[in-house]
Amino acid sequence: MSQGINRYKADLREIRFRLFEHFGLGDLLGAPPFEDWDQETVNMILAEVYQFACDEIGPTNSVGDQEGCKLVDGVVTTPTGFKKAWKKLNDAGYRNMSAPEKLGGSGAPFSVGVCAEEFIAGANAAFAMYPGLTIGAAEVIAHFGEERELDLYARRMFAGEWAGTMCLTEPQAGSDVGAATTKAAKQADGTYKIEGTKIFISAGDHDLTDNIIHLVLARTEAAPVGTKGLSLFIVPRNKIGPNGEVLGNNDVTVGSLEHKMGINGSSTAVLNFGDNGDCVGELVGTEECRGMRQMFHMMNFARIGVGLQGLSVASSAYLNALAYAKERKQGPNIREWKNPEAPKVPIIQHPDVRRMLVDMKARVEGIRALILKLANHTDRQRALDGKDADKAAYHQGQVDLLVPIVKAYASDQAFRICETAIQTYGGAGYLRDHPVEQYCRDSKIFSIYEGTNHIQAMDLVGRKLAQRGGANVQAFAADVGKFIAANKNHPRLATGVGELANAMDSLTQTAMKFMGWFQSGELELVPLSANCFLELMAETAIGWLLLDGAVIAAAKSAAIEDDNEDKAFYEGKVKSAQFFARNVLPLVPARAKVIANGDRSALEIPDTGL
Amino acid sequence: MSQGINRYKADLREIRFRLFEHFGLGDLLGAPPFEDWDQETVNMILAEVYQFACDEIGPTNSVGDQEGCKLVDGVVTTPTGFKKAWKKLNDAGYRNMSAPEKLGGSGAPFSVGVCAEEFIAGANAAFAMYPGLTIGAAEVIAHFGEERELDLYARRMFAGEWAGTMCLTEPQAGSDVGAATTKAAKQADGTYKIEGTKIFISAGDHDLTDNIIHLVLARTEAAPVGTKGLSLFIVPRNKIGPNGEVLGNNDVTVGSLEHKMGINGSSTAVLNFGDNGDCVGELVGTEECRGMRQMFHMMNFARIGVGLQGLSVASSAYLNALAYAKERKQGPNIREWKNPEAPKVPIIQHPDVRRMLVDMKARVEGIRALILKLANHTDRQRALDGKDADKAAYHQGQVDLLVPIVKAYASDQAFRICETAIQTYGGAGYLRDHPVEQYCRDSKIFSIYEGTNHIQAMDLVGRKLAQRGGANVQAFAADVGKFIAANKNHPRLATGVGELANAMDSLTQTAMKFMGWFQSGELELVPLSANCFLELMAETAIGWLLLDGAVIAAAKSAAIEDDNEDKAFYEGKVKSAQFFARNVLPLVPARAKVIANGDRSALEIPDTGL
Repeated sequence: MSQGINRYKADLREIRFRLFEHFGLGDLLGAPPFEDWDQETVNMILAEVYQFACDEIGPTNSVGDQEGCKLVDGVVTTPTGFKKAWKKLNDAGYRNMSAPEKLGGSGAPFSVGVCAEEFIAGANAAFAMYPGLTIGAAEVIAHFGEERELDLYARRMFAGEWAGTMCLTEPQAGSDVGAATTKAAKQADGTYKIEGTKIFISAGDHDLTDNIIHLVLARTEAAPVGTKGLSLFIVPRNKIGPNGEVLGNNDVTVGSLEHKMGINGSSTAVLNFGDNGDCVGELVGTEECRGMRQMFHMMNFARIGVGLQGLSVASSAYLNALAYAKERKQGPNIREWKNPEAPKVPIIQHPDVRRMLVDMKARVEGIRALILKLANHTDRQRALDGKDADKAAYHQGQVDLLVPIVKAYASDQAFRICETAIQTYGGAGYLRDHPVEQYCRDSKIFSIYEGTNHIQAMDLVGRKLAQRGGANVQAFAADVGKFIAANKNHPRLATGVGELANAMDSLTQTAMKFMGWFQSGELELVPLSANCFLELMAETAIGWLLLDGAVIAAAKSAAIEDDNEDKAFYEGKVKSAQFFARNVLPLVPARAKVIANGDRSALEIPDTGL
Repeated sequence: MSQGINRYKADLREIRFRLFEHFGLGDLLGAPPFEDWDQETVNMILAEVYQFACDEIGPTNSVGDQEGCKLVDGVVTTPTGFKKAWKKLNDAGYRNMSAPEKLGGSGAPFSVGVCAEEFIAGANAAFAMYPGLTIGAAEVIAHFGEERELDLYARRMFAGEWAGTMCLTEPQAGSDVGAATTKAAKQADGTYKIEGTKIFISAGDHDLTDNIIHLVLARTEAAPVGTKGLSLFIVPRNKIGPNGEVLGNNDVTVGSLEHKMGINGSSTAVLNFGDNGDCVGELVGTEECRGMRQMFHMMNFARIGVGLQGLSVASSAYLNALAYAKERKQGPNIREWKNPEAPKVPIIQHPDVRRMLVDMKARVEGIRALILKLANHTDRQRALDGKDADKAAYHQGQVDLLVPIVKAYASDQAFRICETAIQTYGGAGYLRDHPVEQYCRDSKIFSIYEGTNHIQAMDLVGRKLAQRGGANVQAFAADVGKFIAANKNHPRLATGVGELANAMDSLTQTAMKFMGWFQSGELELVPLSANCFLELMAETAIGWLLLDGAVIAAAKSAAIEDDNEDKAFYEGKVKSAQFFARNVLPLVPARAKVIANGDRSALEIPDTGL
């Protein structure tokens, strides 16, 4: 077994295609708020970050998986190499590229930050959680905290001097966050005594930094029940002296570390706050009972982040399987299958292997297109903010609409794509010698944390479809409709565009169906089919974006000679979009019909008959 | 983390339903060749084996996963408890129940042996491979070997005194078995010198027995290339003296053990034969170049065995998730979702959780029905053999047809069902404290070994559809057609029967399409869609069997009072069959249409455009 060898792979050419040729990021560069950026700089930075991820983070991935985190005498140690990678990442300044400079970022477009994060998360998904959660927690403090809190906590977190976490989940609560019972008792000096237990805390304790700033959801005395009574507190692991120096433990202890299926390099901790009545926290900002709103601010980014984890791992799984399929020789060409003397061919030549490869490619690139479309909307919203309120609201609306889809679809598919990657390798894929089985194990958590995928689906059908009076989903349908009208007679892609039109029609009808169930009070049918609806909307969106990219690629392919090295690249976009449109989109209307039938068997089956 | 606690679960009531109420095994008992068996004995034995699996094997499952097998100084040790479980299993005599008594069995119907094997494999899939491979190898020797070989080797293997393996795969060959290069050179005394390396040898070396009898595929001098030149050799790990005593090593050494995603308790070995020119084997039987045929004899059973592994693990994953969903309280009823003071309910009440549970139930029980249908055909074939050649041939034909479907569909679905079970648990499912994540990891190999699922799909479309001039598949369609005709107006199940009719029609048309591609020479389209066809045939078959069982259950439910404890059981069969018929079967025609379109994108995409 060859441990520690860097095997992380990403596809820079494809990423450049999506950013510039497909989504026209170039339009936004050189003008506020991206006046310091041009295409060359973006390409250079992304190539740098990719190289960094391969060289400095990638080698820690299988080591982290095998060693895991250890808790000995209350002290958590991270796997070999994590401290060094943490330091190098902070020194390199790649952690928070799209944040404003005053928050430790580089002011890059969100689209660029997203690509950088794909590389970092893909190189080691478990490791990337330490900086990811730190940045997320720091942003909450920077956004909702007072200037003093920003200075005392957030700046050091942005700089990587201290780390951060988000502490929501409790043993009895789980997805039902409002059932949290951790207590916060206000003291005479304005601070709060914190007491309670939080579980599943990612990066919950470690040896990467001198201090960890926990953001803890807790209930103040006399606060109402449910989510409305929750406040958010800054609870440092270690007390902080008057000059910001790190003192002794703030009565925050690690109850245990979880043993998991994957992401073993991430310490998933049970944290006990105030077992000895000596845990002190301070409120984020000045108002109590704002905890859920403050958490939700960060949650959009966190959910996009999980979608990105799915993309990054799935993409490297696909690219590793592709490399293996090109190299591994086995069996003859199908036309020679009866001839034992026929030469052995690389397995990429076998139709079933090609099917798996193009399926993975279409899904990976479709998910990336969806995430970068979302990021592009974010960047356009930022560019238009204060200039064109309607257009800015349109872009923000698309972001809101797409977040749950990105989180849920990318995470579900990541696991399935890793499954296909393992199958492409055959027996070798089941071995720890190759990276795909770890990707598969790591990816299974993505569908669960940061709001399970059912919570995402309920967010989509219960909130997002009706948001702004339905304007967001109508604008989405109009965008797809415009594409269909413009390309329904496309010489190479008309069949696929026809499948897209059918899918979009059935999606719209299904959305109406959900509205109907809300109105008629058939409430149980909504959660019963919400996950399926989210999948159909994701596949329709991805079908659209793949075809949209393929129209551009087909034109570019037609304009260059056959011996141009980009020819195969562009043809690959056309063929994989066709594959998705002809193999995945045709199932959307069939599945929509299943939803519309409103089968109640799952509701009616007796509990004791299950 | 609570290690070693038995958490294996199976559903005896459901198994009795399938055996007796659904497939009428009772018809066959009390008459040759099952004259010593009655329903009560079967139920008693199965309850005993289940209890044994829970008590004696189940506790070794997570221990085996965590410890794995170890290779130190050329010696392989199995995890704690495996030796004891091996001894107890042999003492209990549950390993080979459906074999004739002269081969160490109990002469039970195959259906009963299959259920016993479900319990043993489900309690510890990795452990079950040691007895499973031993029995398989012993049966090959018993069937094809001379009486002397049966006495010297097979009897001790059936008794568990010695173990056995199947050594096919070589590094450069993989699925392309005919590329094997291991050499067998005939000696003056009639034995053969064996020289070569085999990889991925399950149960390849261990400390459970004094000797291991390897069955090795190798090529004799001057034998033709390809599979036709392969012979099968008995190669004991340790030499055997004139009185059957175990002597020193037969120049068989363990190159390494693989580190895998799962089934860590099974030693997956690289075996080197004859590195020092001193490895001696003997031919199975008396004729060279019969190796593939001899292996194939065993392969039907091995493939059913892998399908059973999938079933057993998936079933326990489902039943564990069900138990968790009944116990775990979280969130209010959907109708109270805005009321933070509403009581928390067990998550089984949430519609999305019910959807996952009934989906798992339908798939698990559908796969069990498919395997027990196959087993029932085997038993009827045995009962009719020599009495009614036509009917016996019909039953044997159905067995042949169903084997690749059972292997591939059960193994693919096992992984997906485990995925759903993890999601049902939420975050807890990702932890090693609960059994489902191990089931998920263990199950991923099932789609790969004993012939990848693509090999199964090609066996189905390339051999089985055309077998006996198409008579097998026509008889299958006739059986389904008879059921549809009899039940198309069923008062409770007519909608589902209608979906089955649509699925069956499209399946038949798709089978014709494959025949057409063979005839027109569009050979690449066959492997491109073979896996999808196998899935559609599996889902049609499962839809049929679930509905078939539901018709029986509906009648029984109608005949008993509401307070009868079987009422919910029978209603569960009706509702889960409805669920499958209305949610899964409607996609069969849509997917069949995708196959029929013959999209060639995956073939046309340039390699460098992937």
